Amino acid sequence: MFEEALRAAAGRVEARLQAALSPMGDLPVIEAMRYAVSGGKRLRAFLVMEGARLHGIPPEQSVHAAAAVEAVHAYSLVHDDLPAMDDDDLRRGQPTVHVKWDEATAILAGDALQTLAFDILSRPETAPAADIRLRLIAGLARAAGAEGMVLGQAQDIAAETAARPLTLEEITILQANKTGALIRWSAEAGPLLAGADRQPMRAYAEALGLAFQIADDILDAEGDPAKAGKRLRKDAEAGKATFVSLLGLDGARKRAISLVEEACAALTPYGDGAERLRDTARFVIAREM
Amino acid sequence: MFEEALRAAAGRVEARLQAALSPMGDLPVIEAMRYAVSGGKRLRAFLVMEGARLHGIPPEQSVHAAAAVEAVHAYSLVHDDLPAMDDDDLRRGQPTVHVKWDEATAILAGDALQTLAFDILSRPETAPAADIRLRLIAGLARAAGAEGMVLGQAQDIAAETAARPLTLEEITILQANKTGALIRWSAEAGPLLAGADRQPMRAYAEALGLAFQIADDILDAEGDPAKAGKRLRKDAEAGKATFVSLLGLDGARKRAISLVEEACAALTPYGDGAERLRDTARFVIAREM
Repeated sequence: MFEEALRAAAGRVEARLQAALSPMGDLPVIEAMRYAVSGGKRLRAFLVMEGARLHGIPPEQSVHAAAAVEAVHAYSLVHDDLPAMDDDDLRRGQPTVHVKWDEATAILAGDALQTLAFDILSRPETAPAADIRLRLIAGLARAAGAEGMVLGQAQDIAAETAARPLTLEEITILQANKTGALIRWSAEAGPLLAGADRQPMRAYAEALGLAFQIADDILDAEGDPAKAGKRLRKDAEAGKATFVSLLGLDGARKRAISLVEEACAALTPYGDGAERLRDTARFVIAREM
Repeated sequence: MFEEALRAAAGRVEARLQAALSPMGDLPVIEAMRYAVSGGKRLRAFLVMEGARLHGIPPEQSVHAAAAVEAVHAYSLVHDDLPAMDDDDLRRGQPTVHVKWDEATAILAGDALQTLAFDILSRPETAPAADIRLRLIAGLARAAGAEGMVLGQAQDIAAETAARPLTLEEITILQANKTGALIRWSAEAGPLLAGADRQPMRAYAEALGLAFQIADDILDAEGDPAKAGKRLRKDAEAGKATFVSLLGLDGARKRAISLVEEACAALTPYGDGAERLRDTARFVIAREM
C-alpha cells in the first residue's frame, strides 16, 4: 500500500517534469535535464503529495509543487556530483551527468533545473491563489539558497578544512540546512496549499530529516555500493565527522529509531489518515538498516 | 546626467544586494556571493529602474527587481567563467570567483545567487500586488532558464562542435536567448510593475540587446583587454562565428548603429522622458567603438 502510493506519486511527478521539458528540444543540456530528473525515490515529492492529500488537496494539484522540489533536488545532485564538488561517477546506478555528457553541460543543466522549479511554482495550476504560490516560492528560495541547502553545503565544505571535526550539535545544524530545509519545505507544502496549520508537518519533517541523514550516514558506513547505486565510504575516507563517527553505529541506529517515533508522534492530529507518512518515516531508516 | 543616473542606480542596487547578503555570515560561499555582485555597469538594473521611472514607479520600489536581475546576471558570469565553461581568470579587472576561491565555492555561490533573485522577487517590497510579483517571477524564470539564457548558452556550446559556422540568422537567435532574454525582462519590468503596456519597452529591448551583443563582438575583436578588464579575442581563437566574422567590422558597426536608432525610435511614446534610455542605447555601442 505504502510502496504502491510511493510509486504512483513518483510516476505522476516524473510525467510532470518530462512534460515541462518536452517542448524544449533536444540539445545536450535539455537531454541532460531529462536524464537528471529521471528515477530516484521521490521522497520529497511524496511528502508534498501526502501532506497535500491529508489536507484535501488532490494529486492533480499537488503534483506541481512536488515536481518543483524534485527539480531543485535533481539540480543539487547534478552539481554535487561534479569533479570540483563530490566527484562522483555514479548516481542511482547510472553515470552522473558530467560523466555521460561533460562538466559544462552538467553545470548548465543544474542551473536550468533550479530555474525550472521556480517556473513551475509560478504557474496558476500550482495553486489558484497568487499569494499561496508566492509563499511556496519564497519558502523554496529560503530552503534552497544560502540560508538553507547551499548554506549546509558550504558548512560541509568548511568542515573539511576545519582544525577539528564537527561536534554533534554542529553536524545536526549542518544537516538541518543541507538536507533538512528541502524536506521541511516539502512537508509544509501540503498544509500551505490548503491554507492550514503547518506546525504538525513541520515537527514531523524536522525529526524525519534528521533520521534520514543519520540513516544516510549508516548507509555510507555499512551499505553495499552495488545496492545503493552510488559510491560509499566517502565520509570515512575524507575523515569527516558523521553521526556514525560521533554516536557509533549502535548509537546512530538508536537515535534514528527514536527520531522516527518522534516523527510519527507529530502526526497524531491527523489520526489514521497519516499512516502512509508514518510508513515513510519507517521506510527512510529501514532501507539502510 | 546619464552617467550620473547610471551611477546612482548602480549604487542603490549594490546596497540592496549587499543588504540581502549581510545577515548571511562570512563563510567563503557568502563572501564569494558578495564579491560576485560587486561592481559592473549594472545595465540590466538601470533598464529596470529607468523603465520603472517612466511609469511612475519610484527607485525605492524598482530597486528590488533591479537587484534580482543583477543577481541572475552575476550568477551566470560566475558559472560562465568556470574552467569547464569559458575558463576565464579575469572579470572586471579582478580575479574570477573560482580563481580567488575555488571551483566548488564558485559553483555554490552561483547557485545561491540564482536562488537569491527569486527570493528577492517573492518579497512584498518588490511589488505590493501578489500577481505582479508572480508575473515578474514567471518572466524571470522563462528568461533565465532553458527557454532563455541557458538555452542560448547551450546553443553556443553546440555551435563549437557543429560541422559549419552559424549563419547570421542562427547567431541572432542564439544571442536573443543568451543575452537578449534577460535584457528584455529588465526593460519590461518597469511597465509590468506599473501594470502598463510593455510593447514599447519590449521593442526597445530587442533592438538594444542585439546592438549590445554586436558591440560585444566588436570589443572582443578590437578592444584593449586592459581597458575591458577581461580576456578578449576568445571568439576568433575558438574559430567561432560572430557578428564581426559574418558582417565584417564595418558592417557590424553599421548594423549596431542602425539598431540603436531602432531602439530609440521604439521609445517615441514616452517622449523626452525616455532620453536616458536613448542615452543607454548610445552608451552600449559607444563604449566599444
